Amino acid sequence: MKFFNVAVVAFSLGLSACSQMVRTTDMTKLDSVTPLSTLEDMRTVSPALVHYTNGTLLGDLWKRPQLSARDRSIVTLSVLIARNQTTEMPYYLNLALDSGVTPGELSEIITHLAFYSGWGNAASAVAVTKSVFDKRGITLSNLPAVPSEPLPIDEAVEAQRATAVEKNFGSVAPGVVHYTTEALFHDLWLRPGLAPRDRSLVTVSALVATGQFAQLTYHLSRAMDNGLTKAQASEVMTQLAFYAGWPNVFSALPVVKDVLEKRPD
Amino acid sequence: MKFFNVAVVAFSLGLSACSQMVRTTDMTKLDSVTPLSTLEDMRTVSPALVHYTNGTLLGDLWKRPQLSARDRSIVTLSVLIARNQTTEMPYYLNLALDSGVTPGELSEIITHLAFYSGWGNAASAVAVTKSVFDKRGITLSNLPAVPSEPLPIDEAVEAQRATAVEKNFGSVAPGVVHYTTEALFHDLWLRPGLAPRDRSLVTVSALVATGQFAQLTYHLSRAMDNGLTKAQASEVMTQLAFYAGWPNVFSALPVVKDVLEKRPD
Amino acid sequence: MKFFNVAVVAFSLGLSACSQMVRTTDMTKLDSVTPLSTLEDMRTVSPALVHYTNGTLLGDLWKRPQLSARDRSIVTLSVLIARNQTTEMPYYLNLALDSGVTPGELSEIITHLAFYSGWGNAASAVAVTKSVFDKRGITLSNLPAVPSEPLPIDEAVEAQRATAVEKNFGSVAPGVVHYTTEALFHDLWLRPGLAPRDRSLVTVSALVATGQFAQLTYHLSRAMDNGLTKAQASEVMTQLAFYAGWPNVFSALPVVKDVLEKRPD
Repeated sequence: MKFFNVAVVAFSLGLSACSQMVRTTDMTKLDSVTPLSTLEDMRTVSPALVHYTNGTLLGDLWKRPQLSARDRSIVTLSVLIARNQTTEMPYYLNLALDSGVTPGELSEIITHLAFYSGWGNAASAVAVTKSVFDKRGITLSNLPAVPSEPLPIDEAVEAQRATAVEKNFGSVAPGVVHYTTEALFHDLWLRPGLAPRDRSLVTVSALVATGQFAQLTYHLSRAMDNGLTKAQASEVMTQLAFYAGWPNVFSALPVVKDVLEKRPD
Repeated sequence: MKFFNVAVVAFSLGLSACSQMVRTTDMTKLDSVTPLSTLEDMRTVSPALVHYTNGTLLGDLWKRPQLSARDRSIVTLSVLIARNQTTEMPYYLNLALDSGVTPGELSEIITHLAFYSGWGNAASAVAVTKSVFDKRGITLSNLPAVPSEPLPIDEAVEAQRATAVEKNFGSVAPGVVHYTTEALFHDLWLRPGLAPRDRSLVTVSALVATGQFAQLTYHLSRAMDNGLTKAQASEVMTQLAFYAGWPNVFSALPVVKDVLEKRPD
Repeated sequence: MKFFNVAVVAFSLGLSACSQMVRTTDMTKLDSVTPLSTLEDMRTVSPALVHYTNGTLLGDLWKRPQLSARDRSIVTLSVLIARNQTTEMPYYLNLALDSGVTPGELSEIITHLAFYSGWGNAASAVAVTKSVFDKRGITLSNLPAVPSEPLPIDEAVEAQRATAVEKNFGSVAPGVVHYTTEALFHDLWLRPGLAPRDRSLVTVSALVATGQFAQLTYHLSRAMDNGLTKAQASEVMTQLAFYAGWPNVFSALPVVKDVLEKRPD
């Protein structure tokens, strides 16, 4: 499994015993964008945290078969972007790219989170991602901003959503309702650069990461409509416990339980 | 409309076709304070995000007549400060100054958010604002820290507030109750450097930006008592959708609806 | 009282009249990790904020006898780490060390918050703490990552907790339940490097700082089981008002009131 070879793990944690680290920790550019906490720094401050990072986190959690390293990368990056946590972002961006997330998908994840976690978070993520892309010689400048062929829309589902939102908030917040339809459900969600299932995974992760449980029932259900299995949904919560913190996940679990129990197997 | 001339928009988004950019993007000092995501960076990582930023955001949202560019700047900066999102702060500080927010008002916004979003956020905002002020030759060092003439207090309203808080929390948290009266309602809110209506706008924006809906009924009502119209309150939510993220706004809307429906037109 | 001698307060607020500042503000390394807002910067942007910082905050709040400067430091740092607010972190790390928090305790606080506020926050805190430790010649590299003698576990209390969690979430999130027992309650909480009462103080502070009130009843009760007095719990909320912001504390107070009223004196 590519992700777990020593070189990759060593990459930004800076294991000094690893020869490949020399190449991969040449992070001059990154350092100027965001402070990078290396394994050596961590050892000086907390040998215990190194122990948990290498053992419980990288040596155990990330190896659990219930969720792929690709999905774990998407969940983890969504947390970091939604909470504006740039310190670890370069490490997990590289991990994502090494785990099968394409540059184009990263681009869509950031754009998706501009709407779902605020424009400022996307702007921070852009600055860091630019550096990671530069190191790898990646540029997406030539990608079309507007897809020539958007995904087909499920008219019935969308009509139901639009009717409910219009009824609830059409009079109080017509501007929000307008952009919710035009910018989100008739545009962003139809972009083919990220599968709807992954878009849902990003959304659910961001909601839990920021403690916004009021929208979780809707978006977790949508995630499962889009292909996320019950076992994966459960393991997403395990991944989130470490990256969004235990309290957010324990607050989310009653909602998750309710959604999962009401769905057919 | 001053805000939307090309030079201003180009200013920190770095449109390379614009000659005035050369002067205005000389941001050496800013770069050392906070990474600045330029439009060119953004294009490398996500042409789609550039498209939405120039189109939906700057080309559409900010031009809507329901709320002035000045008010939109106050809302947007309040979000960035309350969420400690320094990356975009220089751009929106400049935009605020170009849209009619005075340096003294910016100063009061930061001070207000020290109390309403935590001291650490104000300290981060100070560091970034200092750089923006320096570039423009602004200093407020000679401004009196304590106003010679505070705004008059509405004794009846304040007595009602103080009684309710004392009754609820006087025994459990006397320290909080003490400072709530002395530092907030007999001091901060009476500072004449920021109109009470704008102070309320800052508070409401910060509450939605950080998902703190328990205080929203009180502060949105107070905002409208202080002069915010229903149409403006509604459009504040539209602005917040983009900068605080959709989920926060959808969680806020039931509260907003309740407050607006209960008020006379 | 050590904390309030001028040199310490002057240290990172940069009071230029103080000769010891020259030595203590040599923060080249810190500056590259995180922007440091000095008192001079603050004066340029907001003389009012300087007034409140020196008066209400450092001159009044921190001197209140209901809570020691050591406890106030733990509360304040927990807020900053849990909210990823690195700007003020160097100042409060130094203040903590000068107020009787040991380097080993700081190390445990960061590690504890990796689990209770997300791994990314701990990583940011490591980068800043490393710089503060370097300045003081502190390294903990030789500290054992796993304690040779963990604290004894209260089997009855732990069985009750484990049963409740298993019953609620065992089927929906077995991974979360597994790590909650193995990594948290059979491991992290038994580390002797930080007293359980202080570990609870960190947890409660992080919960209020991030608006996660669903877990507050459990953890505040646990804090008091671990030795936090009612008067201290009350004053923790006063400290949090300034550092986590008023709205978070007002949202927490109903829960705090309920917990305190139900406990015997």
